[in-house]
Amino acid sequence: MVVTGLFIGRFQPFHNGHLNAIKESLSKAGQLVIAVGSSQRSHEPENLFTLGERIEVIHRVLKEEGLWEKCLIVGIPDVNNNSLWVAHLNALTPRYDMVFSGNPLVTRLFKEAGVEVIAPSFYERGKLEGKQIRLLMKEDSPEWRSHLPKAAVDFIDEINAIERLQDILGSDSHQEVKGEE
Amino acid sequence: MVVTGLFIGRFQPFHNGHLNAIKESLSKAGQLVIAVGSSQRSHEPENLFTLGERIEVIHRVLKEEGLWEKCLIVGIPDVNNNSLWVAHLNALTPRYDMVFSGNPLVTRLFKEAGVEVIAPSFYERGKLEGKQIRLLMKEDSPEWRSHLPKAAVDFIDEINAIERLQDILGSDSHQEVKGEE
Amino acid sequence: MVVTGLFIGRFQPFHNGHLNAIKESLSKAGQLVIAVGSSQRSHEPENLFTLGERIEVIHRVLKEEGLWEKCLIVGIPDVNNNSLWVAHLNALTPRYDMVFSGNPLVTRLFKEAGVEVIAPSFYERGKLEGKQIRLLMKEDSPEWRSHLPKAAVDFIDEINAIERLQDILGSDSHQEVKGEE
Amino acid sequence: MVVTGLFIGRFQPFHNGHLNAIKESLSKAGQLVIAVGSSQRSHEPENLFTLGERIEVIHRVLKEEGLWEKCLIVGIPDVNNNSLWVAHLNALTPRYDMVFSGNPLVTRLFKEAGVEVIAPSFYERGKLEGKQIRLLMKEDSPEWRSHLPKAAVDFIDEINAIERLQDILGSDSHQEVKGEE
Amino acid sequence: MVVTGLFIGRFQPFHNGHLNAIKESLSKAGQLVIAVGSSQRSHEPENLFTLGERIEVIHRVLKEEGLWEKCLIVGIPDVNNNSLWVAHLNALTPRYDMVFSGNPLVTRLFKEAGVEVIAPSFYERGKLEGKQIRLLMKEDSPEWRSHLPKAAVDFIDEINAIERLQDILGSDSHQEVKGEE
Amino acid sequence: MVVTGLFIGRFQPFHNGHLNAIKESLSKAGQLVIAVGSSQRSHEPENLFTLGERIEVIHRVLKEEGLWEKCLIVGIPDVNNNSLWVAHLNALTPRYDMVFSGNPLVTRLFKEAGVEVIAPSFYERGKLEGKQIRLLMKEDSPEWRSHLPKAAVDFIDEINAIERLQDILGSDSHQEVKGEE
Repeated sequence: MVVTGLFIGRFQPFHNGHLNAIKESLSKAGQLVIAVGSSQRSHEPENLFTLGERIEVIHRVLKEEGLWEKCLIVGIPDVNNNSLWVAHLNALTPRYDMVFSGNPLVTRLFKEAGVEVIAPSFYERGKLEGKQIRLLMKEDSPEWRSHLPKAAVDFIDEINAIERLQDILGSDSHQEVKGEE
Repeated sequence: MVVTGLFIGRFQPFHNGHLNAIKESLSKAGQLVIAVGSSQRSHEPENLFTLGERIEVIHRVLKEEGLWEKCLIVGIPDVNNNSLWVAHLNALTPRYDMVFSGNPLVTRLFKEAGVEVIAPSFYERGKLEGKQIRLLMKEDSPEWRSHLPKAAVDFIDEINAIERLQDILGSDSHQEVKGEE
Repeated sequence: MVVTGLFIGRFQPFHNGHLNAIKESLSKAGQLVIAVGSSQRSHEPENLFTLGERIEVIHRVLKEEGLWEKCLIVGIPDVNNNSLWVAHLNALTPRYDMVFSGNPLVTRLFKEAGVEVIAPSFYERGKLEGKQIRLLMKEDSPEWRSHLPKAAVDFIDEINAIERLQDILGSDSHQEVKGEE
Repeated sequence: MVVTGLFIGRFQPFHNGHLNAIKESLSKAGQLVIAVGSSQRSHEPENLFTLGERIEVIHRVLKEEGLWEKCLIVGIPDVNNNSLWVAHLNALTPRYDMVFSGNPLVTRLFKEAGVEVIAPSFYERGKLEGKQIRLLMKEDSPEWRSHLPKAAVDFIDEINAIERLQDILGSDSHQEVKGEE
Repeated sequence: MVVTGLFIGRFQPFHNGHLNAIKESLSKAGQLVIAVGSSQRSHEPENLFTLGERIEVIHRVLKEEGLWEKCLIVGIPDVNNNSLWVAHLNALTPRYDMVFSGNPLVTRLFKEAGVEVIAPSFYERGKLEGKQIRLLMKEDSPEWRSHLPKAAVDFIDEINAIERLQDILGSDSHQEVKGEE
Repeated sequence: MVVTGLFIGRFQPFHNGHLNAIKESLSKAGQLVIAVGSSQRSHEPENLFTLGERIEVIHRVLKEEGLWEKCLIVGIPDVNNNSLWVAHLNALTPRYDMVFSGNPLVTRLFKEAGVEVIAPSFYERGKLEGKQIRLLMKEDSPEWRSHLPKAAVDFIDEINAIERLQDILGSDSHQEVKGEE
């Protein structure tokens, strides 16, 4: 029986650190369910892409890398109730044998559910944090391009996502639409 | 056929800048749908009034100004999912031919839906921002009264809204009811 | 550029009619996004399986059929507001070029959004309707097994889903948990 | 001070009975807030029109009748918790002095809140019930046209609502989008 | 350490069958958490009482019976997602050692969570079903009074609940407020 | 007739200040409904415990103090709409004659509903604020133990809540589960 891993992230945006961590996880698990968190959020500085856009990018990259045959992608909307989160996620994913995540809250919630979480040793912290990449994207500093797989860069150019980010940042109200005063 | 404009705001509170912008918009559109955003919010420092109160004020002012015959008011609750916001708004309003808003996120979301948004050149920034008026209201500095149409000032006095604001500001938890520790 | 189709269903359960329709759709589109509706429902007579279970079955069947390389699966929770449904779906899926569905409401909602829907000519009506298969499953009449791909039958046996169905049908309150009187 | 009435309905569709009841109510109240219930529902056999469409029709009819100067329209989404409904409605409407409704549950909920509800003596029951008009519309029997104000009939023709109703009725799943089996 | 039981019901209304079942459960558990399901529903023919009213009745009866010292009451809102229900309930109740319920769906959901449910042998079916008592209450047939503990009957008289039921039953729309046509 | 008080708090965690205030309130009211706010929140730095855990602690402490006979506990989920909050609370609690709370927003909302709120003179501010106790708990400084009733301290040790707090604080995303970047 093939061992199934669950890999959890927000992927805003999907970057080389994610890709390396997926490869690392696939050295331990025969197939990987990639769970995309905060799936209902988009058009925010910290959550630029819709779930559909994130799935499209990840799918393209994994195809290019020849890894798609071993992967599945699922979206996980926020449940806004931490004590329900593991049950919520379990209803949305195929069964899995191991969990990969670097997030302390995710790790804690699984621990209380009796599941150990493996933290991928996956990227040189400081360089590949999503937060820093988003800062580079805001200024359209060319450096952000070197941190993402080529298919992800192409997708961002294709949908003009840098312009989206800059337009949104003109806003005083980043989290939700509120209308002007 | 009469041209219909859509004018989007939160109106916390409705001030002279809004009134001027509505007049400016009515020079371009024969009738105006006034969309009141974050309609479910109230009793918060940034969202003092209920939707019903905001409708009552706007209606009174427009009546006084002789503009009501050309206007309609609709409430738009937050949808907490930016990618749904334009479809959500469209289900709640009569059809429109042009959109007026100064909010960057609103402008971006309409752009992705293929609709251009017109920013009203409407008020001397710095004087008539809702945020600054709310600051003056907090201290009940008489200056706030000069920034609002008379019918709006009267309504605020009538429902004792300055007291509401000051009571709420006594609270540590402005966004939601949490009970004391 | 590869043509992407969107195939919409509830898959309660996934049966041969679905598989044939997917094959038919893949003769028109180079890749297929399979959208699983009412994704938040489960443990009901009409919605027996969780989204995760439905994904697991579909994935297994498509792997077995050698079709997975051309497919993606996404979950679509009910939005309980028909005028938002197309926008809601669009935020949750990669972009697509054509839509396959036999559901009249889905077809109408896409029509109002300017998208034509293709109805797959897919199964001998009367034999492969989900409703009738669920009736056979309720009585565990062996006939239901002949209407599903082998991997789907195996999965149902593996998780003991017939027992789940029969247990639930002992209930007076099929749609939600209500407690006894 | 002008006396404000609150008139509650779903208006699926807006018909002559509604118009007569509004006129009757305006003989008791100087101005009328028209509250449109189940505002989030549309594209269902019992709830064909969006809130925006219902507002557009009512507005047109009242304009034509010369009554708009005395009216306001507000949408009231279902709150799915009857004990909250009056408070929910109160947050969404300007203050009112009297309530007009023929619905028993609405009447009861206001009674528990200490408010008496006036039932308009408004239409010849049997002829002008929304339910019966919807039945006539389903078959596009010309009779439905005689039960609606002309502006309402024109709007229905303009947006092709009979076709919408017939398309939806082709569906097995009228209440929500579920996808085919 | 005291053994804690969880007793699940809707209590619409609380009747002698419930009281007997609680006594039976207290012969097995030293203390009992009484979980009141569908807690957000009220003012419906099948869900007449608010959670607060149900708690008030149960509390009074248990006080009168000298059982309150051994009991706790918690409300459980519907979660509309059966696969989350057990986790949802667990977040809302103190920890428990055994579960009492006669509802097949509840029993199934706990079984999938690895918890066995004990069905109380509690009432002569046919006489004490909530459904039948509600039918007697609708007609205010005096018989309903003999099926409820005295404190429950007194409470129903005190808040005039029979009138509430009859008022609501005048309505065409029992489940939610919809306004007249 | 016994006078019923309503005592409102979040109890994150339940401390001596709460216990003293409950005793003070019970000198004015014969019985007390303890309303636990933000009941759906847990596993956050400001909201560490689930509702069930908070009920379990309060119940144990009140038992130990011999006060349980006079108390009831109810959970109040956030309603995220301040204008509904009092009606929401009223549907969830037995009827009450007086309200105890030190929270300014709660006090304001009850004032608008015509109910005066009594602020308990209950604790030496600066020592017993929940916020400060949570800070002491974060560092597991032994001092936090002296601010809580013994049964509350024992419960926290029993469920290892200090470890839960420290695990969560390793997280960048305290409010909701977001997955790593």
